[in-house]
Amino acid sequence: MNTIGSELRLTLFGASHGPCVGAVLDGVPPGMAVDLGRLQGEVDLRRPSAGIGTPRREEDRIEVLSGIVEGKSTGGPITLVVMNRDTDSRKYDRFKDVPRPGHADLTARSKYSECVDLRGGGQFSGRMTVALVAAGAVAKMLLEERGVRVAGYVRQIGGVRDQEDRGFAEALLSRSNEVRAATPELAGAMRQEIMAAGEEGDSVGGVVQCVVDGLPMGLGEPFFDTVEGEISKMVFAVPGVKGIEFGSGFAAAAMRGSQHNDPFVLLEGKVRTAKNDAGGILGGITNGMPLVFRVAIKPTASIARAQRSLDVRSGRQTELKIEGRHDPCIAPRAVPVIEAAAALALADLSMRGGTVD
Amino acid sequence: MNTIGSELRLTLFGASHGPCVGAVLDGVPPGMAVDLGRLQGEVDLRRPSAGIGTPRREEDRIEVLSGIVEGKSTGGPITLVVMNRDTDSRKYDRFKDVPRPGHADLTARSKYSECVDLRGGGQFSGRMTVALVAAGAVAKMLLEERGVRVAGYVRQIGGVRDQEDRGFAEALLSRSNEVRAATPELAGAMRQEIMAAGEEGDSVGGVVQCVVDGLPMGLGEPFFDTVEGEISKMVFAVPGVKGIEFGSGFAAAAMRGSQHNDPFVLLEGKVRTAKNDAGGILGGITNGMPLVFRVAIKPTASIARAQRSLDVRSGRQTELKIEGRHDPCIAPRAVPVIEAAAALALADLSMRGGTVD
Amino acid sequence: MNTIGSELRLTLFGASHGPCVGAVLDGVPPGMAVDLGRLQGEVDLRRPSAGIGTPRREEDRIEVLSGIVEGKSTGGPITLVVMNRDTDSRKYDRFKDVPRPGHADLTARSKYSECVDLRGGGQFSGRMTVALVAAGAVAKMLLEERGVRVAGYVRQIGGVRDQEDRGFAEALLSRSNEVRAATPELAGAMRQEIMAAGEEGDSVGGVVQCVVDGLPMGLGEPFFDTVEGEISKMVFAVPGVKGIEFGSGFAAAAMRGSQHNDPFVLLEGKVRTAKNDAGGILGGITNGMPLVFRVAIKPTASIARAQRSLDVRSGRQTELKIEGRHDPCIAPRAVPVIEAAAALALADLSMRGGTVD
Amino acid sequence: MNTIGSELRLTLFGASHGPCVGAVLDGVPPGMAVDLGRLQGEVDLRRPSAGIGTPRREEDRIEVLSGIVEGKSTGGPITLVVMNRDTDSRKYDRFKDVPRPGHADLTARSKYSECVDLRGGGQFSGRMTVALVAAGAVAKMLLEERGVRVAGYVRQIGGVRDQEDRGFAEALLSRSNEVRAATPELAGAMRQEIMAAGEEGDSVGGVVQCVVDGLPMGLGEPFFDTVEGEISKMVFAVPGVKGIEFGSGFAAAAMRGSQHNDPFVLLEGKVRTAKNDAGGILGGITNGMPLVFRVAIKPTASIARAQRSLDVRSGRQTELKIEGRHDPCIAPRAVPVIEAAAALALADLSMRGGTVD
Repeated sequence: MNTIGSELRLTLFGASHGPCVGAVLDGVPPGMAVDLGRLQGEVDLRRPSAGIGTPRREEDRIEVLSGIVEGKSTGGPITLVVMNRDTDSRKYDRFKDVPRPGHADLTARSKYSECVDLRGGGQFSGRMTVALVAAGAVAKMLLEERGVRVAGYVRQIGGVRDQEDRGFAEALLSRSNEVRAATPELAGAMRQEIMAAGEEGDSVGGVVQCVVDGLPMGLGEPFFDTVEGEISKMVFAVPGVKGIEFGSGFAAAAMRGSQHNDPFVLLEGKVRTAKNDAGGILGGITNGMPLVFRVAIKPTASIARAQRSLDVRSGRQTELKIEGRHDPCIAPRAVPVIEAAAALALADLSMRGGTVD
Repeated sequence: MNTIGSELRLTLFGASHGPCVGAVLDGVPPGMAVDLGRLQGEVDLRRPSAGIGTPRREEDRIEVLSGIVEGKSTGGPITLVVMNRDTDSRKYDRFKDVPRPGHADLTARSKYSECVDLRGGGQFSGRMTVALVAAGAVAKMLLEERGVRVAGYVRQIGGVRDQEDRGFAEALLSRSNEVRAATPELAGAMRQEIMAAGEEGDSVGGVVQCVVDGLPMGLGEPFFDTVEGEISKMVFAVPGVKGIEFGSGFAAAAMRGSQHNDPFVLLEGKVRTAKNDAGGILGGITNGMPLVFRVAIKPTASIARAQRSLDVRSGRQTELKIEGRHDPCIAPRAVPVIEAAAALALADLSMRGGTVD
Repeated sequence: MNTIGSELRLTLFGASHGPCVGAVLDGVPPGMAVDLGRLQGEVDLRRPSAGIGTPRREEDRIEVLSGIVEGKSTGGPITLVVMNRDTDSRKYDRFKDVPRPGHADLTARSKYSECVDLRGGGQFSGRMTVALVAAGAVAKMLLEERGVRVAGYVRQIGGVRDQEDRGFAEALLSRSNEVRAATPELAGAMRQEIMAAGEEGDSVGGVVQCVVDGLPMGLGEPFFDTVEGEISKMVFAVPGVKGIEFGSGFAAAAMRGSQHNDPFVLLEGKVRTAKNDAGGILGGITNGMPLVFRVAIKPTASIARAQRSLDVRSGRQTELKIEGRHDPCIAPRAVPVIEAAAALALADLSMRGGTVD
Repeated sequence: MNTIGSELRLTLFGASHGPCVGAVLDGVPPGMAVDLGRLQGEVDLRRPSAGIGTPRREEDRIEVLSGIVEGKSTGGPITLVVMNRDTDSRKYDRFKDVPRPGHADLTARSKYSECVDLRGGGQFSGRMTVALVAAGAVAKMLLEERGVRVAGYVRQIGGVRDQEDRGFAEALLSRSNEVRAATPELAGAMRQEIMAAGEEGDSVGGVVQCVVDGLPMGLGEPFFDTVEGEISKMVFAVPGVKGIEFGSGFAAAAMRGSQHNDPFVLLEGKVRTAKNDAGGILGGITNGMPLVFRVAIKPTASIARAQRSLDVRSGRQTELKIEGRHDPCIAPRAVPVIEAAAALALADLSMRGGTVD
């Protein structure tokens, strides 16, 4: 359903071509300064950029419906909405009968009947992540008050893979280029990968890496509410995500224990580890090292090329061409979304149980 | 915390060296036949096998404390316990001061104070998964009544990787060998990988693949309670898991959309897809294809080799050797645990909302 | 917090003098006809009436932000908002220092700091119930599809007590008079009770009775999610409620078992009870008889008379006079709110577990 | 279902005539001293007393399955069980066809099918409250660490009503007599009321009052998780409860606002109220005054007298006599149960959000 979280609770609502998308964020402590410009800035980060994204101009202006008075949280639920505009829903009619491969057209219609709102993807649209990013921006502020900062960057696009494991500062630098790569060189190569796919009427996938700095030891509520579990659940709500790994991740399968275990060391009077294959988590609880995870993003499902599909009424095979322009790669735009997802999960955990350091 | 699930709700309790480990499974419909022999069989599957596991004899006998009368569920909470025995907890005293690398010794003690029960790993021990498997066996029965079956196998151990994407039937065959490989040849190679690590006083990681057959279209409760999210949260509660991917997973990053999108086809009168890079899920909802996911398992943290650690009281670097014998690879034993985790998540989802097919 | 419910989940937001009050209702099945006129009608029922309520004109127009397209639910979250207008918040400044007796001024400010929004009562205002009634109207439609109808009426105001235990049809008749009494005679007497209090600058309490007709046997999820428990939790969220009782209620304390137990009888082929001291519930589960409960409403806390209070800054005793006009009795306006609360709790239960009849 | 609570979470399991009844209490902070003798003492308080209760000897010995090591909580889930013994279940067979008036025989069987375990009342038996009391005793210890104490007493039995509103100290004195009355005189009169009912093969109802002392200002998480709502939901899980009221309760209906509002005063440097018609709660949040509530308990449903019922198979009216001895009044035994319910709800709230004083 559309609510998640324990002591910091997020409810999403709206649909791609409905009046708005929005979020209710409940549990934000009173008296926190909420910089609306900053909120808007986060939302702007997920807008398509001229070069590699859709040219369609989305002006996503956040409006506050509750919970913030004179720039400060009141302790009541914070409600943020972004109105939708300029939506032409007619072209989606066809997908009722001929579902788009890689989209939720079929499963959503089967589950929710013909009355489901799939115009523009409805509740399954990437547009829902506008609200996620807005709420996540508040979660980020909450974390920053506790010295915790979240930064993501694009680790891979198509065949171009960043070989380095970037730290927080380098991840932040990705904000300087539109593909959200860690260096200008990588940005160039990744951009080409995206452009090439786009020119062929195709799309390409990617990997987003996220680094969380400044976490205290002690976040996480095992057995079930582990740091990994809470982040994963939030992250898999983001359309297009196919996998998540923490620290060494899938590479751990080929490793030896002697190589994988992170030795404990004393660093500035605190117990830390000499390296970070654990990704900052031991036993589902943060260990004071940077939290590191990677998220696999599939190639955009909407492509210009003709695709095989089925007319579900007649049962006949058919060919489907999706009109309009779509992002050939959503990985760059997914960066602020994954950051938001992580921030929301971590902020919730930070308001539960006790942490230590 | 130790409870998870909406309409099928699991609560775990116990500790590795406490009186028992146990599970309360709430929400099982009344009148379901519960084959205790089958339950016991599932639990036995996660016991270490003579060749590759620890020689320590764990006889894990399931006792029913509630919810099953005359072989049938009553509709009340089902409580299953397995008593612990023959535990020597003294050797764990040292780890209070010198935390074992790769273990939760430090984070658990920091979070829960000196009073936390870490004898044998306490609540962070793999032993907790006995209770998870027992509860999962009930969830499997519940799914089987609806025609849904779950099978896992070992896809990779160390450098040995099964190149094939096995279906349900092949996955089941893995039960015929102790490393849970899909073929005898792979079993041999993987066994060698494990033995080699063990002989060097080391351990090795692996990948478990899980296939769920017979799922109807329509399971999953987006926006947040997606199939992927629910399974992930459950899976990351299993000690040693570092990543999870569905369908194409991380390989999607290097793919084109035209290649990744699964075309819709008509199969025996039902809408299916021609291939399954989606892993059986579209928009967080099952699409009627087999659900496929892979889980990365890190190398066993307990190894015989000397490791660098820290005496947290004195702040001095020290060397730690962990006595006793430990599984050089837990991936084979993780198979029934991952199956159980998936079964529990899917059974819960199958009791919520409506499904269609 | 501001979210409640399992499979039908309500999130409230907004504040009395903020931009709006609103509700997100998640879990409404797709394809349900949602009559917006009917929605508006329910909301209008809680508006103050000329004779006995505040003359302040509240025009509460419901706007749909999501979840309803072309008059039908989409299966996505339904978001309803009512904008606030013409609010003069200045007079509330004083209550920061001198809390109003019977109000949440002190407890809210203590809990949520000075940043809490208490203008017009903020989130503690009866105005929040506009959103509750709007969401409850959707829940009513959901119940009506299953043949379940909810009707409340005023059972007591001050010294005037309706001696009869009214059934559903009689309860409905209360809609014909502004005090929501079951008969015109009672309406007259209750009206006088209210007017008398008002003329003395005072207020008076009351009792609202609620009858739910057409419930199947089998609603309720004990041990904890009993019908009584779910309704009570929802009802106590309504400002001003001091008690709730089901069936015989507190009168049961003076009864004998032989008198209280409802004998089973066969009625039109169904097992029913000869009388209904159980109030339609046995063991926390509906038994197919009408569900009956009563709710105690305290006298409006805001009164024109001078009251003793404290200047919490100086610690000096002071006298407080609350300006403006306030309802001398909120019981009549509470009727649709209590109905909504019951409808929401019952609709949620009806979407969980199985019911039988 | 059988789990309740947010940060302190209780799961009940077992059945009256199954192997045991038990509770898992999750979220108890580590390092709390848990006095098992005290735990046992609380459980013993709900045992029937020779004079007025059933002569059947219930020896309810608490066993700890997890969460307590060397007298201290570990931070893991605390599991407590009480084994059942000497149960003769045969006499319950008849109630499958002829449901006992006032019991859950019919509703439980309808909802959970013939497989429901109703021997001895199964999960609907008052016996489940043994586990509730055991868990509640831990919650009490948790509250006592914060200076909060809970005491209940019998306010009314049948026609005998205690006219005084007793404070905490007087409530505690009720432990000196078996009917749990506040004074010896009342104890005598109430005892007679119970004996008279018993001698006539009948039963009688009562009212339990509960006083909670030492609560800080600020407990409660409105809008929905009010103090009243949380306590009510827990209390209505207790078999036999028909109503609950806080502070003035139903008497508020006949009161004027000028009379009902509690004036604020300064007491020992703290803001308190001059009287306590609010029952210690304003706006769903504790206000620092004692929390006061009353619970209506129906007459024991099991009575020796012949009762009208129905053979649900044949549809014929019949007469039912319930063999064996039953408590003619459960109000005295309900006192520790209601205390436990309140303690559990309040301890959970005290672990959420912030409190102030």
